[in-house]
Amino acid sequence: MWRIQVIHGPNLNLLGRREPELYGRFTLAEIDERLRGWAQEQGIEIQSIQSNHEGTLVEAIQQAADWADGLVINPGAYSHYSYAIRDAIRGVGLPAVEVHLSNIYAREPFRHQSVIAPVCVGQISGFSWHSYRLGLEALVTWLEEQTGRRREK
Amino acid sequence: MWRIQVIHGPNLNLLGRREPELYGRFTLAEIDERLRGWAQEQGIEIQSIQSNHEGTLVEAIQQAADWADGLVINPGAYSHYSYAIRDAIRGVGLPAVEVHLSNIYAREPFRHQSVIAPVCVGQISGFSWHSYRLGLEALVTWLEEQTGRRREK
Amino acid sequence: MWRIQVIHGPNLNLLGRREPELYGRFTLAEIDERLRGWAQEQGIEIQSIQSNHEGTLVEAIQQAADWADGLVINPGAYSHYSYAIRDAIRGVGLPAVEVHLSNIYAREPFRHQSVIAPVCVGQISGFSWHSYRLGLEALVTWLEEQTGRRREK
Amino acid sequence: MWRIQVIHGPNLNLLGRREPELYGRFTLAEIDERLRGWAQEQGIEIQSIQSNHEGTLVEAIQQAADWADGLVINPGAYSHYSYAIRDAIRGVGLPAVEVHLSNIYAREPFRHQSVIAPVCVGQISGFSWHSYRLGLEALVTWLEEQTGRRREK
Amino acid sequence: MWRIQVIHGPNLNLLGRREPELYGRFTLAEIDERLRGWAQEQGIEIQSIQSNHEGTLVEAIQQAADWADGLVINPGAYSHYSYAIRDAIRGVGLPAVEVHLSNIYAREPFRHQSVIAPVCVGQISGFSWHSYRLGLEALVTWLEEQTGRRREK
Amino acid sequence: MWRIQVIHGPNLNLLGRREPELYGRFTLAEIDERLRGWAQEQGIEIQSIQSNHEGTLVEAIQQAADWADGLVINPGAYSHYSYAIRDAIRGVGLPAVEVHLSNIYAREPFRHQSVIAPVCVGQISGFSWHSYRLGLEALVTWLEEQTGRRREK
Amino acid sequence: MWRIQVIHGPNLNLLGRREPELYGRFTLAEIDERLRGWAQEQGIEIQSIQSNHEGTLVEAIQQAADWADGLVINPGAYSHYSYAIRDAIRGVGLPAVEVHLSNIYAREPFRHQSVIAPVCVGQISGFSWHSYRLGLEALVTWLEEQTGRRREK
Amino acid sequence: MWRIQVIHGPNLNLLGRREPELYGRFTLAEIDERLRGWAQEQGIEIQSIQSNHEGTLVEAIQQAADWADGLVINPGAYSHYSYAIRDAIRGVGLPAVEVHLSNIYAREPFRHQSVIAPVCVGQISGFSWHSYRLGLEALVTWLEEQTGRRREK
Amino acid sequence: MWRIQVIHGPNLNLLGRREPELYGRFTLAEIDERLRGWAQEQGIEIQSIQSNHEGTLVEAIQQAADWADGLVINPGAYSHYSYAIRDAIRGVGLPAVEVHLSNIYAREPFRHQSVIAPVCVGQISGFSWHSYRLGLEALVTWLEEQTGRRREK
Amino acid sequence: MWRIQVIHGPNLNLLGRREPELYGRFTLAEIDERLRGWAQEQGIEIQSIQSNHEGTLVEAIQQAADWADGLVINPGAYSHYSYAIRDAIRGVGLPAVEVHLSNIYAREPFRHQSVIAPVCVGQISGFSWHSYRLGLEALVTWLEEQTGRRREK
Amino acid sequence: MWRIQVIHGPNLNLLGRREPELYGRFTLAEIDERLRGWAQEQGIEIQSIQSNHEGTLVEAIQQAADWADGLVINPGAYSHYSYAIRDAIRGVGLPAVEVHLSNIYAREPFRHQSVIAPVCVGQISGFSWHSYRLGLEALVTWLEEQTGRRREK
Amino acid sequence: MWRIQVIHGPNLNLLGRREPELYGRFTLAEIDERLRGWAQEQGIEIQSIQSNHEGTLVEAIQQAADWADGLVINPGAYSHYSYAIRDAIRGVGLPAVEVHLSNIYAREPFRHQSVIAPVCVGQISGFSWHSYRLGLEALVTWLEEQTGRRREK
Repeated sequence: MWRIQVIHGPNLNLLGRREPELYGRFTLAEIDERLRGWAQEQGIEIQSIQSNHEGTLVEAIQQAADWADGLVINPGAYSHYSYAIRDAIRGVGLPAVEVHLSNIYAREPFRHQSVIAPVCVGQISGFSWHSYRLGLEALVTWLEEQTGRRREK
Repeated sequence: MWRIQVIHGPNLNLLGRREPELYGRFTLAEIDERLRGWAQEQGIEIQSIQSNHEGTLVEAIQQAADWADGLVINPGAYSHYSYAIRDAIRGVGLPAVEVHLSNIYAREPFRHQSVIAPVCVGQISGFSWHSYRLGLEALVTWLEEQTGRRREK
Repeated sequence: MWRIQVIHGPNLNLLGRREPELYGRFTLAEIDERLRGWAQEQGIEIQSIQSNHEGTLVEAIQQAADWADGLVINPGAYSHYSYAIRDAIRGVGLPAVEVHLSNIYAREPFRHQSVIAPVCVGQISGFSWHSYRLGLEALVTWLEEQTGRRREK
Repeated sequence: MWRIQVIHGPNLNLLGRREPELYGRFTLAEIDERLRGWAQEQGIEIQSIQSNHEGTLVEAIQQAADWADGLVINPGAYSHYSYAIRDAIRGVGLPAVEVHLSNIYAREPFRHQSVIAPVCVGQISGFSWHSYRLGLEALVTWLEEQTGRRREK
Repeated sequence: MWRIQVIHGPNLNLLGRREPELYGRFTLAEIDERLRGWAQEQGIEIQSIQSNHEGTLVEAIQQAADWADGLVINPGAYSHYSYAIRDAIRGVGLPAVEVHLSNIYAREPFRHQSVIAPVCVGQISGFSWHSYRLGLEALVTWLEEQTGRRREK
Repeated sequence: MWRIQVIHGPNLNLLGRREPELYGRFTLAEIDERLRGWAQEQGIEIQSIQSNHEGTLVEAIQQAADWADGLVINPGAYSHYSYAIRDAIRGVGLPAVEVHLSNIYAREPFRHQSVIAPVCVGQISGFSWHSYRLGLEALVTWLEEQTGRRREK
Repeated sequence: MWRIQVIHGPNLNLLGRREPELYGRFTLAEIDERLRGWAQEQGIEIQSIQSNHEGTLVEAIQQAADWADGLVINPGAYSHYSYAIRDAIRGVGLPAVEVHLSNIYAREPFRHQSVIAPVCVGQISGFSWHSYRLGLEALVTWLEEQTGRRREK
Repeated sequence: MWRIQVIHGPNLNLLGRREPELYGRFTLAEIDERLRGWAQEQGIEIQSIQSNHEGTLVEAIQQAADWADGLVINPGAYSHYSYAIRDAIRGVGLPAVEVHLSNIYAREPFRHQSVIAPVCVGQISGFSWHSYRLGLEALVTWLEEQTGRRREK
Repeated sequence: MWRIQVIHGPNLNLLGRREPELYGRFTLAEIDERLRGWAQEQGIEIQSIQSNHEGTLVEAIQQAADWADGLVINPGAYSHYSYAIRDAIRGVGLPAVEVHLSNIYAREPFRHQSVIAPVCVGQISGFSWHSYRLGLEALVTWLEEQTGRRREK
Repeated sequence: MWRIQVIHGPNLNLLGRREPELYGRFTLAEIDERLRGWAQEQGIEIQSIQSNHEGTLVEAIQQAADWADGLVINPGAYSHYSYAIRDAIRGVGLPAVEVHLSNIYAREPFRHQSVIAPVCVGQISGFSWHSYRLGLEALVTWLEEQTGRRREK
Repeated sequence: MWRIQVIHGPNLNLLGRREPELYGRFTLAEIDERLRGWAQEQGIEIQSIQSNHEGTLVEAIQQAADWADGLVINPGAYSHYSYAIRDAIRGVGLPAVEVHLSNIYAREPFRHQSVIAPVCVGQISGFSWHSYRLGLEALVTWLEEQTGRRREK
Repeated sequence: MWRIQVIHGPNLNLLGRREPELYGRFTLAEIDERLRGWAQEQGIEIQSIQSNHEGTLVEAIQQAADWADGLVINPGAYSHYSYAIRDAIRGVGLPAVEVHLSNIYAREPFRHQSVIAPVCVGQISGFSWHSYRLGLEALVTWLEEQTGRRREK
């Protein structure tokens, strides 16, 4: 069974309460529930955490190295300047997929650039909460191909 | 049943024969076959086309407007300068997902920038041929949510 | 009688069908008909061609050198990067006027820059299909002044 | 009958006396006379003014709002840095066409950029004094299409 | 009675102890006391918080949404790179005024640019602790005009 | 009694007549009247002047040095390129506050940069006509602290 | 015997007919004939192709991989933006030499930059048609040193 | 006898009254008197004018063409952005020398760049009021060498 | 006896466990022990702290001002964007030395730039854990020279 | 009597033999002779040196500190990149005037920028060999004003 | 018989001893010997010189003007910044060919740019020592075509 | 015993005589003496050389390869543009440490950038003459770790 740490960055705790036309109508709790439901069917175990603190996100990545096989991370606004998160991902050596709810390329220019993507396996953006689900799917597929081990549904 | 046009840009006809460490070991024909198999299970009809010609790609997009519900496009090197392809996508008004086999952020700087992504629903890169599959999944999910119509598996 | 080659670039075959608020409600065929009507009154012979292919546009310019006195060209998205079209115009030595349906300065920044304008006599943008008519008028006036020969209405 | 304010910017009072190879052999008075002649035939009333003062040009635009239907303006060197003129045009809300005697794209790089063009309907450059005539023609055509009112020749 | 959250960013707890020629001779406690005194006279209730932690500032903004009518924020050095704080302000939808003790244009270039100002009502800088008082005055005036409700002195 | 010169730059004579959603519904005369009323209560004498001419603004600053204690200036579009106004302010040595009706950071990029702010005491933007009032308040407070002399209400 | 594909890019079919002071007086056919003559003496077999179409050039490179030992390519204007041609060269893995008739450093700045040169063995420019001959000589010398195999004159 | 127009730009009427450590202790009247005295000895007739208005400076240059042999101009802050003054100098065709009281390279970066120098014979900066005297000397020497005519002391 | 605060930034708690070829094989605890041993011999008292939180690092710097004579700081990834840490160092006024384990110039470009170095006495990078020791040595030498006071071994 | 070191940079030994339209028809020996003649009349002693070697120019500046009161230097092409010469001038503390034979602003862009001018009293360019004479005059005037000592003609 | 000066720039005296995979296994003496052998067969006389000193290279170019018909120069690292060498080549007016042993486009970005190439006939890079031979061949071919004079083998 | 070549670049022969607040009060001879004393205690043999000539520095690096184990180099102003020195260091393959007396990050921007640092083991700046000593220490430590050989004190 694959174990994945899901990490939600700053302001994602506001989901469902503000700007639904941009981020969708689900709260973060509802998204986590749906992800867990889908994951269980797929034979994937997930843990999820949200923080507005850069340092806490860094440490969540470090601690994931003790039990998880990979990371699905939505770094929120930190995507655009947190070299600390980037170093954490590279430092622990876990495969990571960066996800965004909205299409970062169709928004303000400062959102086009991610300093975290270069140390990830790939990036998925623009599909509201499905970005997380697609990210999990992509990450587990990648793990299966790397190891030859299949998820046990 | 959803109908999706898959479009492969320049040099993708070389897949499986050259640089497998970068693009994977499958040929384009094998990828198309796998995509079709997976799509059939999902109740999705796909057509696919490859061209090295910018004009042909523009016209493939234009013609897709007559029958397809959306586009999954890997513009290859044209991603970085083809405003003609960008105008075609915006002109026909079909929802599109841009995909790349490799993580464009982990390669040369000129590959980080896409002039096509701003007119797409989203972008997926870094998962070899699975990027296409994830792109199809993402696009159909988006269509279902926009229309309330479900795929008929 | 003056002979002018009119050249329409990529995606202009979509005219009248898409984004009328931006490009007007006429199809390309209707524009060509109106231009031909107006030209006939003025004693001008025009040929017109549309292509989405950069190479075909290059060759249309080369072939125009065999019979035409000048070019009115709307290079569409190629305006912003096709040094090949620029070289073709300079290579054949025909006077050319660059035209655009919309005001390129009131749109995205990448549209402000034209690599083709520097090898043209002038540029006209922002007057929907009238840009072509004004371009023809401007080009023939220029030819008359250069040669002392008057159009034969 | 359409009423158009024609505005000539700095150094255009030198026309016909200096650099005829660049700007043509007509004086500004001769150009105004020709424009007036042509306008009368077209059923257009024009007023024209020249000034070397940025502030005077700003005020000419403001005052035109009391009587004119639109502006044809050759901002001369102010094209490249006068945000004050730009604000004036946008402030009064009159449709404006920017014209230049010479092809600004075929001259020094600082002339390629216009800070005024983005608030105009369109731009015409490169046809010596005919640029003004084409500008009038373009502006009145635009007014006719916007209002459904025809010029009364 | 209007309720305003005052937020002090990193290193502002050093005020009055260090670099008085740049930031003035008052401690943060003294500034808060003066603000509270002035606010009481004006019929304004204020809460104030200082933190050196970006995440804590993000959460202070989020929590203010439960009780306050607006924000006066001095983001300190975070002004120049914290897109997380920017997203928080936009996310909660409270009107905010950005203030700075010193004139940011008279200091190092990196201080000229604020990533937070674009999501604020306005910005005030250069008047030492009075910048806060002017910010409160400006914010309450703005609230009064938006709602038609007057402060109750 | 403090004496302050208020200076209004180009196009501000259009206030109240154009674009009220951007600049408010008051005319410049109404703003001046309100400022004078408020100033009188505060024991402040103000003179105000508006000009569209860069040179006239330079001279208004120079002449203020003969009688005023400071300047409140809204340089309008000249903010972004008039080094002449900047030199005038620094040359006469009067303390100045730069004000703007709208939040310059929430508009086009060219408006973010002010070449005049670096020679001012501070900058206030975004509070419609109140920006002037806040600017006067800020300037007089600054003068009082610098000199120990209080306004005589 | 070494086999080399010679590739001529856009507008080179105009050679000898236009701008001889820049490109020399030979037609492309004459250049090809001279190259073939020289090659035969050297024991080298060459094929040559010209196209104005970017896609056709991409495919010429791909097809060369079936029979040729290397490429001598004059990409013309495509040198400056065709990442598609660059990808083709790298994709097929053939050693390539980029050649130009004129010294690209002595012309417009946009010609100094080549996006294709980084994937070539070397670049030769400035010697009119001799650039091709020198390019062939250079490429074959390189091949001989790499393989230890000598050309068989 | 050579006739030279001396032109002083914005804020130079403040000379001697403000910032003497930067611009010297002489007033503009004193400088003009010294220049006239020195000129008389040299057999040179000078007229001088100062204006803070860009348009007035443009016209002073235009009018100088009726009587003067050349220009010595200190454009002050307009050096850095007045393409209108540049066009005036080139338009009238008089030889001009640009002078500055202070060393523009030892001040803020925006002062290093002059848009006017490219149309002048030369530039002299850094020698307080002597810059003018050296400029006159340089200009008359240049005129003597061009014409073979000597000043008549 | 000199008292120095040693500060370790984000991800340095991973030392010795990850990427030893880049950062060496010692854990942070081992490095601290070695530093303490060496410091004791030198008559230097050191305290050390590690945090992944930007705010905690800011406060560690502020608190060091109560007891320490200087700082040796490895800001990790925060080097490249934390103006908050920069302000803290300048605010408390302690002499600081920035150290890095690896040569930041031999790594990715974003690592070449430090926003913290400008407020430090000096910077040392490239000598694995010895960078700290050299930094201590350098800082104490600097302190001795500034004060004339010698370390008491 | 003032003593001035005149320094001629690289390629100036070619003067009079090459490109007279750009640099004039005098050889360097003739220029030195003229300068010496003019200097003697003025009561100035000059030494002059030419070198093509950057290091030799650095040492000429260092040695001048033993006897000269100032430097007149034409750094030739080194103007644009020799920070070593800049450091030498600042290091020895002699007042220096930078001169150029031609107007550097009317030539290639790389010549507009001087890295040496910021450490000089002033700069004179564009008056062929007279630039040296004007430079000597300017430097001695500056010395006289600084010291109150007059040249002894 | 043609006479060519061959010039080797800095660090080329290390050839054959260091980095053979980059520069080949021949020493500079061996290269010179091979060049001389080949040249003799071709009826070309060559002199060669190596120096690490920029000034010495400048003078070698100047002295070549007394006897040689042209230059083949490998400026080494000076290619990228020596405007002094550029000025020397243009000053003496000899035709020159710039050569490099390795493909400068396949190396670090700073090596892509040559400040010397714009004043040369052409550039050849990437063929180890053969670059010199090809350069000689190209230069003599160019001389023959310019003069109509043939080499006398 | 380790053998190290110490290299001092341009203007360092002025040390102790000029700008002591920037570079310290020791002459270069005194620094060398101290270094030698310290080195002897450490069992290190050093040779030192100073030159203002770029070529001489290049050759000093080349000659060091015959006897030394490494380089400590202060390239002075050449740090910022001497690719020749960079090539020499990489060419000879000796480990090098770049040192600067002052903190290059606290000075003019052009000094922040070093073209030499990328080929060094590390960089030390800001500790006056101790920078050299620390550099020697760092280099020898690095050598010992690489080879397992200890210095023989």
